[in-house]
Amino acid sequence: MKITMAHGSGGKETSGLISEIFAHYFDNPVLARMEDSGIVDGAERIALTTDSFVVTPLFFPGGDIGRLSICGTVNDLLMSGAVPRYLTCGFILEEGADTEVLKRVAQSMAQTANEAGVSIVAGDTKVIEGNGGIYINTAGVGFVRSGIEIGAGNCRGGDAVLVSGELGDHHAAILSARMQIENTIRSDCAPLNDMVEALIKNGIEIHAMRDITRGGLATIAGEFARASGCCIELEEKRLPVNEQVKAFCGILGLDPLYMGNEGKMAVVVAEKDEQRALQCLKESRYGENAAAVGHVTHRENGMVLMKTAIGGTRVVPELMGEGLPRIC
Amino acid sequence: MKITMAHGSGGKETSGLISEIFAHYFDNPVLARMEDSGIVDGAERIALTTDSFVVTPLFFPGGDIGRLSICGTVNDLLMSGAVPRYLTCGFILEEGADTEVLKRVAQSMAQTANEAGVSIVAGDTKVIEGNGGIYINTAGVGFVRSGIEIGAGNCRGGDAVLVSGELGDHHAAILSARMQIENTIRSDCAPLNDMVEALIKNGIEIHAMRDITRGGLATIAGEFARASGCCIELEEKRLPVNEQVKAFCGILGLDPLYMGNEGKMAVVVAEKDEQRALQCLKESRYGENAAAVGHVTHRENGMVLMKTAIGGTRVVPELMGEGLPRIC
Repeated sequence: MKITMAHGSGGKETSGLISEIFAHYFDNPVLARMEDSGIVDGAERIALTTDSFVVTPLFFPGGDIGRLSICGTVNDLLMSGAVPRYLTCGFILEEGADTEVLKRVAQSMAQTANEAGVSIVAGDTKVIEGNGGIYINTAGVGFVRSGIEIGAGNCRGGDAVLVSGELGDHHAAILSARMQIENTIRSDCAPLNDMVEALIKNGIEIHAMRDITRGGLATIAGEFARASGCCIELEEKRLPVNEQVKAFCGILGLDPLYMGNEGKMAVVVAEKDEQRALQCLKESRYGENAAAVGHVTHRENGMVLMKTAIGGTRVVPELMGEGLPRIC
Repeated sequence: MKITMAHGSGGKETSGLISEIFAHYFDNPVLARMEDSGIVDGAERIALTTDSFVVTPLFFPGGDIGRLSICGTVNDLLMSGAVPRYLTCGFILEEGADTEVLKRVAQSMAQTANEAGVSIVAGDTKVIEGNGGIYINTAGVGFVRSGIEIGAGNCRGGDAVLVSGELGDHHAAILSARMQIENTIRSDCAPLNDMVEALIKNGIEIHAMRDITRGGLATIAGEFARASGCCIELEEKRLPVNEQVKAFCGILGLDPLYMGNEGKMAVVVAEKDEQRALQCLKESRYGENAAAVGHVTHRENGMVLMKTAIGGTRVVPELMGEGLPRIC
């Protein structure tokens, strides 16, 4: 069935769409009450975040817009040290969107929410003119753990910078799908609960943590450097990049440093914890290719420097211009 | 300045847009931390909701998409008996959107958030291809008051049904603007904190409460009737409708019963509290034209009936079909 403007009217068609697709796949007692708000248990301190997802194509090797819409918001909550708990979910559907596609997306959202330990407790659907596109906003609530203080501004000289795996996979997978280039690159789209849990459980002193999305590691390192008034020094030869992604980037003139992932994070930990943190990451789900990629110094405060593979040092500038906006 | 795909890339242009517009107007200490999640005080029980806003035109008599995007979510929280506290806000911008327009929208959001007593604590911006459109999702968190149990399923025979003012104003204003019909009809778009506060403070026994949006009073009454297994009996001559809206509907063959507002609510209260509840509404902000419009009975369980102006009784069916989807 194709979505029509009537599905956004708030009447019988809207409620049919909700009960047959969203309430069906997202099934839980809070949503089943069908009230305007979901009422749930709270916590002393909560973390709130939101993200919209406009990726094309909707389905790609390694994931789809549904899985992405859960991972993106769950990972943002995790990065603040919170335990992700609840999501809200707003669909903006273009007229002509296919309800079979919507079912696959909702099913993928439900599976990923289950993996990430979150419930979808409120939703909304709107229909706009257009050509069958599907856009999803999710907002998330997490419970803040006590005694954890993570922030981009907390990096200190000597801290170690780690990434949880290979850079650029999601970006390269989406671009390949759009350009119809055949390869086996897959998006890394995943919820990072397990690795964050491992770091915290093992008492790693985490200073800053960000999931690597739009703008890539370069953008995050820049945010850390500016917020902390420190210098982030990366070592090019330590940056993990899948061989096929490397070749893909070489051909297209792309830099993995600026490319988005959807299941990777950068974490800055106290110097003393570097090796233990690396081991935690490597032993956790989705973290097998984690690497220590650099340090926090005071060489050029507010900047990101890169020790190149041939031994030079260059400045890593901020991303300017486009950088493939519709990847997430 | 026009929005380009680069504004959605996550790099320098994105952060410029955020700091110059969103962070500027929504200014608060949580947002100023510029982390992926906003960390705020929680509560034992919280209410969560979300709504997306796709209205055209963006500016209309009585409001704009910015004011709407705050009121819609705040009102959903209020209807569950919660105190609205925090909002997240996701912008999906079509390429070509004007940053001057975006500034006006953000300013309106900030003013309305201020009126409604909520802070915008997290945000996101994405850019899609298109023609300058602006879509906004807001998600909201409210603190649940203890001892309040409001739900569509709680209506009881004998209960009184009240509406907080004239029906169809928002819908008629949007339609007039789109059809370029000249009149003085204004959207009623408003946050309903004051009237809900008044009902609760005065100890009114509220059984069910919904803001009247897409689908109109008919849709809400239908939800109440089905969820409670009761009959909602409305009296046509008691329904408050602005004279100009009435004339507008007459000409276009529209029924105010199915038309959306954005600053009105329907509330079902215990029989004993009917008059006090009506007085609370009438004395509160935006409630001067409140009216008692019917009762809960068991005449035809699960249905909405209307005593017509000429003394007959008719069934009020669910909204089928379009009903102007892009009004909210």
